[in-house]
Amino acid sequence: MENTSAVLAFDVGGTDTKAGLVLGADPGQIPEIVDIQRFRTALDPGRPGEVLVDFLAELVQRYQSQHPEVRIEAVGLTVPGLVDEVRGVGVYAANLGWREFPFRAVLEDRLGLPVAFGHDVGTAGDAEVALGAARHADNAMILVVGTGIAAALYVDGQRLKAGGYAGEVGHALAPHPDGGLGIVEGTGSAGAIAKRYAARTPGFDGGAREVLALAKQGDATAGEVWADAVQTLAFSIAQAVAMIGTSKVVLGGGLAESGDDLMLPLSRRIDELLSFQPRPELLRAALGQNAGLIGSALKAHQRRAEWLAASGATR
Amino acid sequence: MENTSAVLAFDVGGTDTKAGLVLGADPGQIPEIVDIQRFRTALDPGRPGEVLVDFLAELVQRYQSQHPEVRIEAVGLTVPGLVDEVRGVGVYAANLGWREFPFRAVLEDRLGLPVAFGHDVGTAGDAEVALGAARHADNAMILVVGTGIAAALYVDGQRLKAGGYAGEVGHALAPHPDGGLGIVEGTGSAGAIAKRYAARTPGFDGGAREVLALAKQGDATAGEVWADAVQTLAFSIAQAVAMIGTSKVVLGGGLAESGDDLMLPLSRRIDELLSFQPRPELLRAALGQNAGLIGSALKAHQRRAEWLAASGATR
Repeated sequence: MENTSAVLAFDVGGTDTKAGLVLGADPGQIPEIVDIQRFRTALDPGRPGEVLVDFLAELVQRYQSQHPEVRIEAVGLTVPGLVDEVRGVGVYAANLGWREFPFRAVLEDRLGLPVAFGHDVGTAGDAEVALGAARHADNAMILVVGTGIAAALYVDGQRLKAGGYAGEVGHALAPHPDGGLGIVEGTGSAGAIAKRYAARTPGFDGGAREVLALAKQGDATAGEVWADAVQTLAFSIAQAVAMIGTSKVVLGGGLAESGDDLMLPLSRRIDELLSFQPRPELLRAALGQNAGLIGSALKAHQRRAEWLAASGATR
Repeated sequence: MENTSAVLAFDVGGTDTKAGLVLGADPGQIPEIVDIQRFRTALDPGRPGEVLVDFLAELVQRYQSQHPEVRIEAVGLTVPGLVDEVRGVGVYAANLGWREFPFRAVLEDRLGLPVAFGHDVGTAGDAEVALGAARHADNAMILVVGTGIAAALYVDGQRLKAGGYAGEVGHALAPHPDGGLGIVEGTGSAGAIAKRYAARTPGFDGGAREVLALAKQGDATAGEVWADAVQTLAFSIAQAVAMIGTSKVVLGGGLAESGDDLMLPLSRRIDELLSFQPRPELLRAALGQNAGLIGSALKAHQRRAEWLAASGATR
C-alpha cells in the first residue's frame, strides 16, 4: 500500500486517547483502520487546549514517521463535552478543562493539514448513520450507554447540534426509582448500574456486566438495579419518540454489549410507554468501538475537500 | 387597494375553520389580514378529505366574489393532527377523520392555484420565528397550550418535522402529580386544569382562567391544580432544553394569556430542574390567534414562487 492516502483519526477521552490510521475507502464502504494505539491523554489544567494540541501534533509526526508507506492527508479529532462543530470550538469539557478553545483553527495552523473537529458521540453517530446500523435513517437516536450516557439525535436527515447542547440526554430528567426526579445517566448508565448495586452490596466492586450476571442468577437487588436502568432508558427513548419523532434507536457503548438482556426488556418497556406513536426500531451499533475514528475520517475527507477548494490547489 | 394581491388563508380546526385574506406585505413586516370569518368545519366521516376540499373551494369562490378589489393568488391551509408537509399530505387527524389525504395536490388541481399545506401549530410557529417573538432564534420551542398541547420545535434554524411526528410534546410523558406517569397535556393544558379542578369540585364548569382566579383568591385545590400544570409544563420544557438545546420558549394558546401568573412560576421551576444547561428565555407569542393565518400566507408566497418557476410562467 505504498503512498496510500490516510486520515489520522484521534478519539480523545478524559483518560485515554485512541489513534488510528484510517485508509481511504470507497464511499459507502467501511474503511480499514490500521495501527490503533492508545495513549494517556495529555492534561494541563493551566493550558488544557494548548497541551492537547502539542500532544496531538507530536502524535501526527510519530505516526507519519512510523508509516512512511502512507501519506497522512488530513486529521480527524473528536473530543467529549460541549462542542461547537460549526465553529470548530471545544466549548467546555469537565474532565479535560478547556473552555472555548478553537481546536480546529489552531491545529490546522500548526499541522498545515485539514482538521475535522467533532463531538465524540456525534461523530460516532454520523458513522453509524453513514455506514452502520442507522444507514439511511432520517429520524434516529444513537444512544451511547457507558460510564455516562450521551446521544446523537437525527431529525429529517440532519444531526441536531444547537451549538453543542443537543443530544445531552444523559443529563435530561427521568423519574427516579426511589421517587422524585433524577438525571437519566444517574440510573440508566453502566456506571450507575455498578454504583447503585455497590451501594446496596458492601464489598462489590464489579461493573454492570457483573450486576447483570448476578441478576440472571436470581439476585433480587441486581435484578432491581438492572430493571431500573431499563425503565430509565425506555423513558428517555420514549421522550425522543414523542418529542422529535425518533423511529430508529441504535444502542452503543459498553451496556449495549449485554445484547438481548438489555434489548428485549427495553423494547417491551418502550412499547408500554408509547400510545399512538409508531414503535421505534431498536438496533445495536454496527461499527463498535471504532465508530468515532471512522466518523472522524469521513469528516476529515470532507474538510480536506473544502480546504483544497478554498486554497484553489488540487495537488 | 384595487387589484392588490392576496393569499386566502385557512386555519382548519376540529370544530371551526377560520379564514382571512392576508394582504401582501414587505418581507419582514407583519402582514395585514382583512375580513376574518369563521365557519363550521365541513365534516363527513365517509369522505372527510373530499368534503373539506369541496368546502374550501367554495370559500375561495365566495371570498373572491366578495372581494373583487383583491386578486387571490394563492391559498394557505393549515390543519391539526399528523401532517406530512414535505408530501403535502394530511396523515391523520382524530377529530376530522382523514388518513393519508393528499390535500395539497387535490386542492391545487381543483383551484388552479398554488396551495401551501401545513400543520397548524408548526405553521403558527414558523410565523413566530419569521416575524414574531422567536425572530432569528435558531433553537426555539413554540409551545401552544390550550385544550391540548402541541409544539413547533426548531433546532439549528430548522423546524423539526419527522414526517409529522416531531413536536407532539403534549403526548410525551411526565411524572403525574398523583404518582406514576401521564401525558403532558393530561396535566399541563388549559383543558386539563379545568377538568382536574372540576373533578374535585362538584358543580364547577369554568375554564382554566376561572381556576387561576380561584387560586389567587386562596382556593387551595385551585392552587394545587395550577401548580401541577406549571410543574408539568416546566418538565416538558426542561426535556427540550436537555435533549435538543432549546434556548427560547414562546408560549402561545389560551393559557399564555395568564401572563405572569404562568410565566413567573414556570421560569422558577425550569431553573430548579436544570443544572449546567443555559436557562431558556421565556416569551409570550407575539402574533396572537392569527399566527397560523400569517404563517400560512408566508408559505403560500413560497409555494407560488415554486409554482411559477415550475410552470415557466412569470405573469
